[in-house]
Formats: sequence, C-alpha cells, structure tokens
Amino acid sequence: MSFTRPEPPYYAVVISSALSGEDPDGYAAMAVRMAELGARQPGYLGRESQTGADGRELTVLYYRDTESITAWQRHTEHLEAQRLGKQRWYADYHIEVARVERAYGFQRS
Amino acid sequence: MSFTRPEPPYYAVVISSALSGEDPDGYAAMAVRMAELGARQPGYLGRESQTGADGRELTVLYYRDTESITAWQRHTEHLEAQRLGKQRWYADYHIEVARVERAYGFQRS
Repeated sequence: MSFTRPEPPYYAVVISSALSGEDPDGYAAMAVRMAELGARQPGYLGRESQTGADGRELTVLYYRDTESITAWQRHTEHLEAQRLGKQRWYADYHIEVARVERAYGFQRS
Repeated sequence: MSFTRPEPPYYAVVISSALSGEDPDGYAAMAVRMAELGARQPGYLGRESQTGADGRELTVLYYRDTESITAWQRHTEHLEAQRLGKQRWYADYHIEVARVERAYGFQRS
C-alpha cells in the first residue's frame, strides 16, 4: 500500500501502455516531471504502478473526483507531454476512468 | 491490449498485492488454476497484470457487471484459494471494485 486511500467513492484512472523505444531519455525525464507535477494537482490521491519484464507498464492513478481528472488532463504542460507521447514515446496505450465503489484489503500481522 | 474491451460501462477489479514468500510452488499452482477457472466464469472479460522488480503485483480483472464479480468471489474453489492466500501466500493485498465510465486509447500506426 503506497498511500492511504479515502473511503469510496473515489476515482481510478487505469493506464496500460507500451513504449515505442524512441527517445528513451526524453521519455524518462518527462515521466519524472509529470509524476511530480501530477502529484501536486488538487484532488490527486496517489498511484500504483508496475512495469513488467515485457516492458508493458500498468499504472493506476487515484483522484477524489472526475473534475480533478479533467483538470489534469487539460493542464498545459500535461497536454504537451500527451502530444509528444503520441508523436514519439508510446507504441500504444489504453486508458480507463473508473469510479471506485468498494475497497478492502488484507495485511499480514 | 491483451483483449477487446466492450463499450463502457463495465467493471474493473484492481488488485495490488505482495507475496509472503511462503510456499511459492503452492501459490504458483493455485494462481494458474484460478486464472484458468476465473477466465471461464460468466461475465469475465479479460485481465491486465504486471509484476514489478520489487515483487509487487498489480492486476486488473474486467467484468461485465457486479453480479459476475460477486459470483466469482463466492465460487467454492475460489473461496478456498482466498483462505489459503490469507493463511500462507500474501503479505498484503488491496482490492478495489470500480465501474469503468469511459475509456480511450492510442495505437501507433
């Protein structure tokens, strides 16, 4: 558990992506910048992310509400990152916006 | 994109987990069995899963509706797997049930 979640409802953005292999340094720098900037946006709650041995990345970003997601999607610097992402960095991606309705967990004592 | 998604709304179950390290062969066998059995349940749509270098696994299972999720959760063999998971295999897990409201993607041409 990388962060403390609030009680549902809240929102999850599920991103499954693969890189093109083009300009890896540019991508890495932008990924760090977007993670920092994104984490400072109103309504951002936290993230979970794993990259597999096949290079595919699965990331879930959490937000308080859809307004927070829309505002980040339209952020000027993020729009430029999205443009470059499609032009250079991504082979493909799939994004889903989902409303978390219930949540539960287990922690070994 | 490991499977063709329907148009929203549909459901996503987000599972973030870490193993305890106990009985890895038993866990591996059960994971294969549950993936096979789970994929045959009514309403199951597909999955995305990545395991990081740190050993944490992030998995998203997709379903047509909440009834399909509940039915699988209560499946006799799956209940036994859940019991053993808490007893032996998992250090921790966090599960969220979320309604996918919109989805979009990009594929390099």
